[in-house]
Amino acid sequence: MKPEVLLSRIRIVLCRPSHPGNIGAAARAMKTMGLTRLSLVEPKHFPDPEAETRATGAVDLLKHAEIHTTLNAALAGTVFVVGLSARRRDLGPEIGEPREMVERLLCAAEEGDVALVFGNETMGLSNDEIQCCHAAVSIPTNPEFSSLNLGSAVQVLSYEVRMAAFSGRPPVSDTLVTPFVSPTAKHDEVEGLYEHLQSVMTQTGFYNPEQPGRLMPKLRRLFGRIRLERDEVNILRGVLASTQNKTRHGSRHD
Amino acid sequence: MKPEVLLSRIRIVLCRPSHPGNIGAAARAMKTMGLTRLSLVEPKHFPDPEAETRATGAVDLLKHAEIHTTLNAALAGTVFVVGLSARRRDLGPEIGEPREMVERLLCAAEEGDVALVFGNETMGLSNDEIQCCHAAVSIPTNPEFSSLNLGSAVQVLSYEVRMAAFSGRPPVSDTLVTPFVSPTAKHDEVEGLYEHLQSVMTQTGFYNPEQPGRLMPKLRRLFGRIRLERDEVNILRGVLASTQNKTRHGSRHD
Repeated sequence: MKPEVLLSRIRIVLCRPSHPGNIGAAARAMKTMGLTRLSLVEPKHFPDPEAETRATGAVDLLKHAEIHTTLNAALAGTVFVVGLSARRRDLGPEIGEPREMVERLLCAAEEGDVALVFGNETMGLSNDEIQCCHAAVSIPTNPEFSSLNLGSAVQVLSYEVRMAAFSGRPPVSDTLVTPFVSPTAKHDEVEGLYEHLQSVMTQTGFYNPEQPGRLMPKLRRLFGRIRLERDEVNILRGVLASTQNKTRHGSRHD
Repeated sequence: MKPEVLLSRIRIVLCRPSHPGNIGAAARAMKTMGLTRLSLVEPKHFPDPEAETRATGAVDLLKHAEIHTTLNAALAGTVFVVGLSARRRDLGPEIGEPREMVERLLCAAEEGDVALVFGNETMGLSNDEIQCCHAAVSIPTNPEFSSLNLGSAVQVLSYEVRMAAFSGRPPVSDTLVTPFVSPTAKHDEVEGLYEHLQSVMTQTGFYNPEQPGRLMPKLRRLFGRIRLERDEVNILRGVLASTQNKTRHGSRHD
């Protein structure tokens, strides 16, 4: 199934969000990762101008957001549900880390709609809400400061969903696919540079062919690591040639 | 080297941030992933109450943030620098996706301090700023909506850094390490359940041993998938036993 179709089957469900700004941030986070379906269960303030401000260019997701009075209503028709949980519950569903759970979510999305459920900012998902989920996911935060913002949590999981949907290689925007193109320098071109460099250093006295030491191997190691482009070899040889002119010029007057 | 030491060598550098709220969000994002070193280059408003509000429990990172007038000053002493870039530049450094670049960042952190550099909210990193970086990283956003919030970008990369520093297995908080423990049911216990189920269904007439069809294989497939715990087997057998009592009781009166 095409990644875009899988992404279109994923609902992001926010349960009882208190701050409309977080709803906007969640919408923006979703849209940057190609997710479109936002559901809200009993939002405290919605619609709200603060949500629109934080959503910036993702206001369309807010306009199409579904609003429900119960989590079960928001989950109608789904075949797999994962809830975000910062802690294991005594009788909650099994809990896993994001990459594992996102893989399972996408497997299930091959069969139908699925949902990622996020709890209230302060309390997270209630025990009743987590009981509606087949599995729970925990973002591995710093144990000493695990206070992840709601929008940030949606961002991290949406990013993982996108990475997984495209098997780790999401398409990049057109602005990334036209690199600066100068062909890689050929072996003999780079060797010409080394010869040129050695001859200049011999002229200046920096290199003594009688006692070469490890100078040339070190320079070869340096330039070898860079994988020089042809233009770059030409620039370096231009610099070398200019020093030769200057050296000869200088020596005429000394 | 210990993951915590690697994390302590990573500087997050924000260049010319316009909105103090984003500085606070970045600090919070960093701290949730165990990063502590925030540097600001010419922030428009800092310190600022809005930054403290959005930082919530990460105000300590704001207090210790370094403020510089140039990016070069912020990068003094680093051995490797990666800049966030939404696009390839004609003469910019090589660009890669987050997991690859974060791996390289951590390799370099074995040798010394490293930095992740983020540009201004509207313009991103300038060409001069990206020239200070050894490599660029691009978060693979939706090509049709790549407007990632600054705090969200810091969150995604900090998360990838943490995942990589702990080789994909960051430690979880104490609240996650004490699962509800009931031992997995043994083979013979589960077989006992199947026998009990079959006998109840035979009594009720739902199962006909003369024409068994595929009922038992289907039920075995269902329960086999769950990897039942011993307590769960006991509960199910309790339910079955109760229906037998009722069936017997009912049949006495019918």
